[in-house]
Amino acid sequence: MVRLDATALHGSLREPVLDSVGFLNEVMSRYPDAISFAPGAPHPDSFADVDLQHYLDRFLDHLVHQDGHTPGQARRLLFEYGPSRGLINALVSDALARDHGITIPPASVVITVGAQEAMFLVLRALFRAAGRDTLAVANPCFVGITGAATLLDIPLVGVAETDDGIDLDGLAAACRDARRAGRPIRACYVGVDFANPGGARMSLPHRAALLELAEREDFLVLEDNAYGFTATGGDELPPLKALPGADRVVHIGTFAKIGFPGARVGYVVADQRVGDGSRLLADALAALKSVVTVNTSPLCQAVIGGMLLTHGGSLAQLGSAKAAIYRRNLAHLTTALDRHLDEARSAGIRWNRPAGGFFVRIDLPVPADAELLEISAAKYGVLWTPMAQFYLGIAGDRQLRLSCSYLDPDRIETGVRRLAAFVEKEVVP
Amino acid sequence: MVRLDATALHGSLREPVLDSVGFLNEVMSRYPDAISFAPGAPHPDSFADVDLQHYLDRFLDHLVHQDGHTPGQARRLLFEYGPSRGLINALVSDALARDHGITIPPASVVITVGAQEAMFLVLRALFRAAGRDTLAVANPCFVGITGAATLLDIPLVGVAETDDGIDLDGLAAACRDARRAGRPIRACYVGVDFANPGGARMSLPHRAALLELAEREDFLVLEDNAYGFTATGGDELPPLKALPGADRVVHIGTFAKIGFPGARVGYVVADQRVGDGSRLLADALAALKSVVTVNTSPLCQAVIGGMLLTHGGSLAQLGSAKAAIYRRNLAHLTTALDRHLDEARSAGIRWNRPAGGFFVRIDLPVPADAELLEISAAKYGVLWTPMAQFYLGIAGDRQLRLSCSYLDPDRIETGVRRLAAFVEKEVVP
Repeated sequence: MVRLDATALHGSLREPVLDSVGFLNEVMSRYPDAISFAPGAPHPDSFADVDLQHYLDRFLDHLVHQDGHTPGQARRLLFEYGPSRGLINALVSDALARDHGITIPPASVVITVGAQEAMFLVLRALFRAAGRDTLAVANPCFVGITGAATLLDIPLVGVAETDDGIDLDGLAAACRDARRAGRPIRACYVGVDFANPGGARMSLPHRAALLELAEREDFLVLEDNAYGFTATGGDELPPLKALPGADRVVHIGTFAKIGFPGARVGYVVADQRVGDGSRLLADALAALKSVVTVNTSPLCQAVIGGMLLTHGGSLAQLGSAKAAIYRRNLAHLTTALDRHLDEARSAGIRWNRPAGGFFVRIDLPVPADAELLEISAAKYGVLWTPMAQFYLGIAGDRQLRLSCSYLDPDRIETGVRRLAAFVEKEVVP
Repeated sequence: MVRLDATALHGSLREPVLDSVGFLNEVMSRYPDAISFAPGAPHPDSFADVDLQHYLDRFLDHLVHQDGHTPGQARRLLFEYGPSRGLINALVSDALARDHGITIPPASVVITVGAQEAMFLVLRALFRAAGRDTLAVANPCFVGITGAATLLDIPLVGVAETDDGIDLDGLAAACRDARRAGRPIRACYVGVDFANPGGARMSLPHRAALLELAEREDFLVLEDNAYGFTATGGDELPPLKALPGADRVVHIGTFAKIGFPGARVGYVVADQRVGDGSRLLADALAALKSVVTVNTSPLCQAVIGGMLLTHGGSLAQLGSAKAAIYRRNLAHLTTALDRHLDEARSAGIRWNRPAGGFFVRIDLPVPADAELLEISAAKYGVLWTPMAQFYLGIAGDRQLRLSCSYLDPDRIETGVRRLAAFVEKEVVP
């Protein structure tokens, strides 16, 4: 019987970040009747009306009438391998121009297996082997990016996040320190709108200042745009990639929330020139992708392409009905917290009030750790995510994250009641 | 305007292996009327009868009747995120037992975005950062594995391949040399049946001897089983994973050839125990996958699962009609070579006669390089793949690879006529 020594496997496998999803799934599986505010997964209603055949037909029709394929050729494209860079790149670049004022050539888009693969490819392209270049992230941070960096042995530095996004003085100081230590910051990852998990949203001046800092300190900005679509109509802010200084921005998007996660379709815009200028960073990403996943399923791209076409080629239009679900849920969640946890405020319990996104953060006066989660699940039937797992270093140990995305309003109400009972009995006695 | 210095990007982007597919696509796009023996892609006829709705319905039915889901729950599984390890693991493990006598628990299977992601994850798990552990590969070798190793900065050593597979004396010597140099061979990648690109097939004694060597020298065997299904009925050989010593084998499979490539569904069997034995290597692979692609599209897994169920849950039955196409094509190709290139034998031109798979290798008396390919394409309208790109180091520069998989018999015949004219005029004058 072969037994592999754990220390002989890659070091990332001993890092807690790779276990975080598994840990929550394990707790959830032991308490199937608990109301879980843990998963940041899209609401089931958001894909109740996915009509696969309709979307495929719509996309095939597009291939025939727009791209001049015969129906037979078009159908074959769904089943064959395809270019590593993707099949729906022009649809995505058109939509980005239409919705966000991001004007880039289709050749600078790579279609990826979700935003996750986009992050992974960008990190691999930008960071050399055993290099000392550092990735800066907001602290707390989405585990997908810190996990991918860990898998690639990329050094990380966390910079505190306020409700207005990553702290720019902190980031500037981190740049100076890192340069002095011979570990320059090569790139900085940020979720600009309603970041997972902190809920931060960068104001427009903050966005401009970040891009100025990037120029001054010579780093690239990796912009994750997963939650911007949940902004209230009229309250949308332009993504970094649409602002002056955007040539330093690599823009990452996903169809998991505005389409459906099971398609595993995301994208990255990387229009930076490489070397003599004849190649784009996107070309490098596509080359790397050819030895990671070869290409993103053309079948899945076709479904997403058809969805996009059915919604006027607009990301915003595709996402609008879904955004309404999440705005409704978030309002229910914060209202329920106000109603049921109000008395706990005197004991120092606080929560933030993001104007969009999936997540609310609660500060407790005691550690929100696995032990407390177990009590919450076993005795009160309510689950949440300890925030500490989203932080680099030891921090956030007295915070928890609630996600409103997956639950119905009545479950949110019941869940917050349970949470209030849990807080009253276990946290502030 | 941001311009990135090419030397500041990851080193793999300067390795030719990442350019090899791009190079061929570029040549093919410039000669659209040429007959191309280059792509190892499945024949279009092999997915002419893919009935997506039928397969989805079949899989949903399975989820309801076998796994006890309600129809609504089952449908939701297609659209949601899913477990990183996959959705159709039990179907795959059942099929491996039924078809190949590989008996492993479903928990040791991870469903991946094609075999490519499986290779990538296995390499990441087994090789430490900046480690000195080495991956041995047959030389010539599939660029997917050498490309993935390059992306992860894993040292490679090539071992000569005969028509009976990787040379075992050479591999034993490589093990000794590597150990002495402090770069022990951690794993060896082999295509056991009709390997891409060399066409080698390991005999049963050779398979047994490889596993004995793996035991003696303490390395793992990464078995790629993409082409075994093309063996003539009755002539199948058991995969390494079904032989004594199989606990050292990580078995990698794909549905690209027996299903369709656009699904991007493959799998890996990794039943090795890790650490105290409570975890499997498959658990480590699933954890790594969670930060590369999160999970394989459940929609695509459902289509493949439905295909498998429709064919009695058997990989062999699913692949049998496709295997007939490739056996027919390969016979056409070798017969046409015998007929049209026979005179060239006197000039030292030789080709191998694999009993299956997609590929035939031709030895030329002159370099089969990009320049010669250009002449072949421009003047004779026929394309092939220079073999040198499949070799580590400088080798194979006088070999070319023909793939029979993508063409119809009449195109194969015409293509070989063109090839014969090219050889007669340009190679043996």
